[in-house]
Amino acid sequence: MAKEITPRSENYSQWYNDLVVKADLAEQSAVRGCMVIKPYGYAIWEKMQSVLDAAFKKTGVQNAYFPLFIPKSFFSREAEHVAGFAKECAVVTHHRLMNDPDGNGVIVDPDAKLEEELIVRPTSETIIWSVYKNWIKSWRDLPLLCNQWCNVVRWEMRTRPFLRTAEFLWQEGHTAHATAEEAQAKAVEMVHVYADFARKTMALPVIVGHKSPNERFAGAFDTLTIEAMMQDGKALQAGTSHFLGQNFAKSFDVQFADKDGSLQYVWATSWGVSTRLMGALIMAHGDDNGLVLPPALAPIQVVMVPIYKTEEEHDAVIAEFEKIKAQLEALGHSVRIDDRDTLRPGFKFAEWELKGVPVRLAMGARDLAAGTVEVARRDLLTKETMQLEGIARHIDGLLADIQQSIYDKALAWRDANIRKCDSWEEFKEEIKKGGFLLCHWDGTAETEQKIKDETKATIRCIPVDSCVCEEEGVDIYSGKPSKGRVVFAIAY
Amino acid sequence: MAKEITPRSENYSQWYNDLVVKADLAEQSAVRGCMVIKPYGYAIWEKMQSVLDAAFKKTGVQNAYFPLFIPKSFFSREAEHVAGFAKECAVVTHHRLMNDPDGNGVIVDPDAKLEEELIVRPTSETIIWSVYKNWIKSWRDLPLLCNQWCNVVRWEMRTRPFLRTAEFLWQEGHTAHATAEEAQAKAVEMVHVYADFARKTMALPVIVGHKSPNERFAGAFDTLTIEAMMQDGKALQAGTSHFLGQNFAKSFDVQFADKDGSLQYVWATSWGVSTRLMGALIMAHGDDNGLVLPPALAPIQVVMVPIYKTEEEHDAVIAEFEKIKAQLEALGHSVRIDDRDTLRPGFKFAEWELKGVPVRLAMGARDLAAGTVEVARRDLLTKETMQLEGIARHIDGLLADIQQSIYDKALAWRDANIRKCDSWEEFKEEIKKGGFLLCHWDGTAETEQKIKDETKATIRCIPVDSCVCEEEGVDIYSGKPSKGRVVFAIAY
Repeated sequence: MAKEITPRSENYSQWYNDLVVKADLAEQSAVRGCMVIKPYGYAIWEKMQSVLDAAFKKTGVQNAYFPLFIPKSFFSREAEHVAGFAKECAVVTHHRLMNDPDGNGVIVDPDAKLEEELIVRPTSETIIWSVYKNWIKSWRDLPLLCNQWCNVVRWEMRTRPFLRTAEFLWQEGHTAHATAEEAQAKAVEMVHVYADFARKTMALPVIVGHKSPNERFAGAFDTLTIEAMMQDGKALQAGTSHFLGQNFAKSFDVQFADKDGSLQYVWATSWGVSTRLMGALIMAHGDDNGLVLPPALAPIQVVMVPIYKTEEEHDAVIAEFEKIKAQLEALGHSVRIDDRDTLRPGFKFAEWELKGVPVRLAMGARDLAAGTVEVARRDLLTKETMQLEGIARHIDGLLADIQQSIYDKALAWRDANIRKCDSWEEFKEEIKKGGFLLCHWDGTAETEQKIKDETKATIRCIPVDSCVCEEEGVDIYSGKPSKGRVVFAIAY
Repeated sequence: MAKEITPRSENYSQWYNDLVVKADLAEQSAVRGCMVIKPYGYAIWEKMQSVLDAAFKKTGVQNAYFPLFIPKSFFSREAEHVAGFAKECAVVTHHRLMNDPDGNGVIVDPDAKLEEELIVRPTSETIIWSVYKNWIKSWRDLPLLCNQWCNVVRWEMRTRPFLRTAEFLWQEGHTAHATAEEAQAKAVEMVHVYADFARKTMALPVIVGHKSPNERFAGAFDTLTIEAMMQDGKALQAGTSHFLGQNFAKSFDVQFADKDGSLQYVWATSWGVSTRLMGALIMAHGDDNGLVLPPALAPIQVVMVPIYKTEEEHDAVIAEFEKIKAQLEALGHSVRIDDRDTLRPGFKFAEWELKGVPVRLAMGARDLAAGTVEVARRDLLTKETMQLEGIARHIDGLLADIQQSIYDKALAWRDANIRKCDSWEEFKEEIKKGGFLLCHWDGTAETEQKIKDETKATIRCIPVDSCVCEEEGVDIYSGKPSKGRVVFAIAY
């Protein structure tokens, strides 16, 4: 089974596509660019949602739900936003089908044309701020902190499962504040919620930073991002948090009465992560045998495979597995006993390896007699024979070790692929090798664009949490003065 | 605040609309028929989702996600289904906007017409069965038990918040089985999951039964339903579960190899509940002061309002509240201390009454000195002074009492409004009074239609769990023989 996966060294992109399909995460549907998220993939997404949702709520955010459709005219209200979002999108023009008078199935009823076309939301700032106008009257109504979990549609030309799809699932937080400072602080708080989630739950090291003006969200004053490095050395933007200033408040006329009675425009943030995180998870940790899931996101954390010749042996091993399963479940772990009688153990081993289950137990009659069990860990592909005595406690600790170990490995690898680079000739060579290049930049959009045109590299972020970048220097391209290094990379 | 709500006796329909808006559950958006679910309303929906999702998973169901869009041609494949669902729907015809050459904002780009129009899913049988074709090859792949939580769109002409909206949120389960018996059993199992949820979590008494052929889901062989009675005596269909036979398997050519190697079409079910349950919850239990929430679904189960003149009094009361709050939270309850200093206690009382919080505590300096607290229960609008000693345990029990009491009240009221009716003259009078009429029916669609045309009453269900209905008799309208009574009512 595992050997059907293209090795990473041969074709990283094909390896990714193979993994998505063969590990039962997702597949293409009959609708261009729209994927089906299969139960195993969706179970991982549910775990992501659950951890993130709790983290949002801890910061005072409440969930709500806003319409799927946005009137076309709303997009014209915020000038930059329309340029960034309203172009490639799904447009609803009619509200009825009818039987084809010629008898060929159904056709669109020409009499059912909408007065104003509706856009399937590519993001919800406009519809949400049209609603916030009703909710915000006074300083007492602020801050307003809402999030929604929903689907959005962006008509992408080239799609890849999870990384770039026409429809995707995400959460979008939209907050309203009385002051610029408070809104800015909220945008910073939320990007750190994402960074914590990436590091602790996804075992994914990320760099937190500001986007350069070229890479900002359409309509934002500042975009904060978490940037991760994939195993091919490319960067993946895993989550963003925007300080929107008063742009949307002004476009939708949302003002509040301050304590002194004066009317002020409201300050805004928005922030989101999507099913793209699934792509990051797969690409950051997977190997040539399949997925490697951090225990915190694994739908099955421990799988148990019985090895037997007789029914008696089978029953004895299963009975012992049931005991361990109960103990592990009491410790909060999810366990599956793979008792399918039509498959050989070797096939099962390969299947659970492919699906990235962190820990696998195998036990036969001889193990049972000796009071031992074989414990295999997915991340290192190692096996060990262990005493049954205290096995649940041991596995509990092992799962924590694996979580940390996956993070440490990704971190070491990433750090080994971050390099300082101080000349343009060197940059052009180094960027071909992949990884993140820490370079001086003069702060202008022109220089950034020229570097992108010549090398495809973009500024992933201007780091906020790395003191190594705070030094003066000269721009690698223009030679003009620079106040600090930024992260350049080729990105997904 | 509460007095702004229209009394039920004056205008039940207006009372409902008032409650939805004033209790901060939902509101109309700028998009026709699409509502915004506000944080307080959404928090109730999240609780519903959480209980239902766990119940589904207990039966072996897994979540997945299927595309929002369905190719138009898919609807033509199942003849009845297209008649029932593909007519009033949102049709995506284009995938791009462009700047208006005349400078008037954005327009639909005529060059970006889709080859085949896409329908925003009104329900997902067709797209899901097109996917199941890839997933099902052998008997080993069955049963396949998937559910998705998502949004759907049906272009309704007359909409009401939660009860009937163009876009709504729901779950739709879609299962595939090797035999008709197994599929039928699954449809029955799931309608009972819904009935249990309605009774235990929503405190809503429901009748479980089969739909008459006229009222079946488009494409189903059998539709099971849970029917609830609202306070105006109208029926509300709160959830349905369908046995679909092999209709969709045949339309999408989904066959499996049986154990003996022969190819067989797969048997199907689908089942769903939606944000319509929010409407049922509001209309079943609310009163003229506002919402009455069963504790199992209340986002805030206990609210505490301090009464004070001095800062010292305030601090002492809040300190005591914090202690009780910690104890209640340890027991798994959600608590809010309403410490807003710009509002009077009376205003707060009315607000939390409006929002249906099951238990309210009020405490002033005198209570504190006496070691007592005032405990008000929302459902009965009663108040009692209680000892602080052991108060958390007491409230824990009180919440369970309230949950039961709300159910009992709704049940008693419903049962008082179910009447047997044996003549057509009597029926025409009685149906005007509302409630459920248990009547003999000859089993024909013709008779059902005639009764509907003359009185607007429909057969809500042929009950499965009520022995009172199993008796022979004669149809109230046609006088033909009948094998049992069915439930007639005017429905939402």
